[in-house]
Amino acid sequence: MSTTQASKIEIIKAPNTKINEVDFDNINFGSVFTDHLFECDYKNGEWQTPTIKPYAPFMMDPSSRVFHYGQAIFEGMKAYKDDNNDIWLFRPDENIKRFNSSAVRMAMPEVPVSLFTEGLNQLLKLDEAWIKKGLGNTLYIRPFMIATGFGVVANPSDEYKFMIILSPAKAYYSGEVKVLVAEHYSRAANGGIGSAKTAGNYAGQFYPTSLANKEGYQQIIWTDDATHTKLEEAGTMNVFFRFNDTLVTAPTSERILDGVTRKSLIDMAKREGINMEVRPVLISELTEGIKNGSLKEIFGAGTAAVVSPIKGFAYKEEYFELPKIENSIALQLKEKLTNIQHKLAEDPFDWTVKI
Amino acid sequence: MSTTQASKIEIIKAPNTKINEVDFDNINFGSVFTDHLFECDYKNGEWQTPTIKPYAPFMMDPSSRVFHYGQAIFEGMKAYKDDNNDIWLFRPDENIKRFNSSAVRMAMPEVPVSLFTEGLNQLLKLDEAWIKKGLGNTLYIRPFMIATGFGVVANPSDEYKFMIILSPAKAYYSGEVKVLVAEHYSRAANGGIGSAKTAGNYAGQFYPTSLANKEGYQQIIWTDDATHTKLEEAGTMNVFFRFNDTLVTAPTSERILDGVTRKSLIDMAKREGINMEVRPVLISELTEGIKNGSLKEIFGAGTAAVVSPIKGFAYKEEYFELPKIENSIALQLKEKLTNIQHKLAEDPFDWTVKI
Ligand SMILES: Cc1ncc(COP(=O)(O)O)c(C=O)c1O
Ligand SMILES: Cc1ncc(COP(=O)(O)O)c(C=O)c1O
Repeated sequence: MSTTQASKIEIIKAPNTKINEVDFDNINFGSVFTDHLFECDYKNGEWQTPTIKPYAPFMMDPSSRVFHYGQAIFEGMKAYKDDNNDIWLFRPDENIKRFNSSAVRMAMPEVPVSLFTEGLNQLLKLDEAWIKKGLGNTLYIRPFMIATGFGVVANPSDEYKFMIILSPAKAYYSGEVKVLVAEHYSRAANGGIGSAKTAGNYAGQFYPTSLANKEGYQQIIWTDDATHTKLEEAGTMNVFFRFNDTLVTAPTSERILDGVTRKSLIDMAKREGINMEVRPVLISELTEGIKNGSLKEIFGAGTAAVVSPIKGFAYKEEYFELPKIENSIALQLKEKLTNIQHKLAEDPFDWTVKI
Repeated sequence: MSTTQASKIEIIKAPNTKINEVDFDNINFGSVFTDHLFECDYKNGEWQTPTIKPYAPFMMDPSSRVFHYGQAIFEGMKAYKDDNNDIWLFRPDENIKRFNSSAVRMAMPEVPVSLFTEGLNQLLKLDEAWIKKGLGNTLYIRPFMIATGFGVVANPSDEYKFMIILSPAKAYYSGEVKVLVAEHYSRAANGGIGSAKTAGNYAGQFYPTSLANKEGYQQIIWTDDATHTKLEEAGTMNVFFRFNDTLVTAPTSERILDGVTRKSLIDMAKREGINMEVRPVLISELTEGIKNGSLKEIFGAGTAAVVSPIKGFAYKEEYFELPKIENSIALQLKEKLTNIQHKLAEDPFDWTVKI
């Protein structure tokens, strides 16, 4: 299947490029798209002819299942260009695997690995001018799938659309991040869909996050919904805590997205000889850690945000600010990771893949 | 605002009707739509000119927020035609109120009551030929709102589309319903979005429901995610249990949709002098109730399904069948409710509204 499908991609080129209209140094994250997109529809139980074509709106029926019952999944990846103009991906196999496990959980068809890979690679080659060289410049890749079947009946759709769109991007968060620890609202249920990268998980966070924003916090650190004592993850990042010289992060579960950045940082930390623990982290450890001085750092980790230091957190109406420190492990790991991703340092893990 | 907006609806009539192509006695639920739809877009912080126009697909950008972050809510209502050709709605105020509380929870703008009401009423008048007389004939009404703003960044959209589409419908479930009681999977978290009628809540149920289907169960009765001991609701229905001559249903909460049918049945049961309890119901009460003979009936309640008797349930690999009974309270309440809705009986509650 892999070769047949790969050879079948229909390519319709855009008559002109929009690239000259773009100020690459001033792009809001996720707001500008390249000239082309990759599209493949699923109908009658199989994937149809894949197409690369100009980025453009498309027609949807008002009764399309995605609007009513929310079958929608996505991934977030990045492409990097090195000094030789080669294009690199970071652990794309992990994203494809996660995309397909999200698909299973949302009762959607899996996308064959060869279709995903070939579609992505050919799209990147066609729009390669949009990938700029240099640390901090990346092309954000957004594969997604939506239910396009008709009918307002709460059953899985029989038709789907898989697309990949590309958006040039710098880092996601700018400025210092303060977070609120969730005491009432939750992101995910036991036995729910928290570990799937599905659209509804994000919409559910917007209202509580808007309440947090009003109080001056950019993000929420979600806790388990039963006891609100275990720290789980932030809106689009997994979270790490440093107590003295030990890094700690929560184990993945049905409630937590199994982040590629998270698992990469765990491996990097271990290789650096940093003491790395994967275990449930309690909110009480943070408040005590602030009091006795053992809590040194908190940072988020995700493809969009890379590594994002957190300045302080609020819990039960109290704000706790982290100490200023000299040797931030967050910043060291961030530098090492981005150097690997941008091919500016050796990649001892074989994580980077040339397309 | 109410009168200005009401007067502003732009109406574009369909050149011809599709009604003659429809076999009203053989329609799959939610699969056939009337000639027109109501549409109103939200932009720059306000609702734009509302329009009634021919039912048709519309354009969506690949980066539309609904595809990526799942801001999407809906309602389900029905219209009925009486012997005088008057058109009636059942407690529409309840649906509008719930729609707007779903909107708040999903960080979407509320739809002004007058805009919703006028849009719906004018649409129903225009497509009134699609509402057939007679018990069991209804027009299912699907108001919904989706995030149409551009950009793959996990923030609330700045643009939305509100639509109402109409679909002629008979009863939703046919045949006898067997249910599976959830032991591992869950529908909603404490502090989550379970009480909002939002798209993602439905997609999350499809996979566990497909596993249940394979074992011969049509629906799942969801339990609380922390202990899986409290019976909450089914996929698109609230659930009632009859122990001897007492009816019991779970209280609403953040995890449970506050159903219009549920609250109507509670009021009807009370008026009939039936002992009606609203309290948490444990799975152990059901298994014991089967053993000692006190569990007489289980039924689902919802707009689409009306009242749907449940034949038996499975829990921990064991199937429990309910006894056959003579005087089913489910069927009595169903008859009373549908008679009120179809204007075939007095409406002592003032629930029906003529448009
Ligand atoms: C909920 C959530 N958690 C964590 C992450 C981080 O995952 P990754 O490192 O794979 O980007 C993301 C973003 O992708 C996310 O959406
Ligand atoms: C999850 C869920 N529970 C219960 C119901 C029943 O609510 P109502 O009686 O208002 O239709 C519905 C359907 O509308 C539903 O989707």
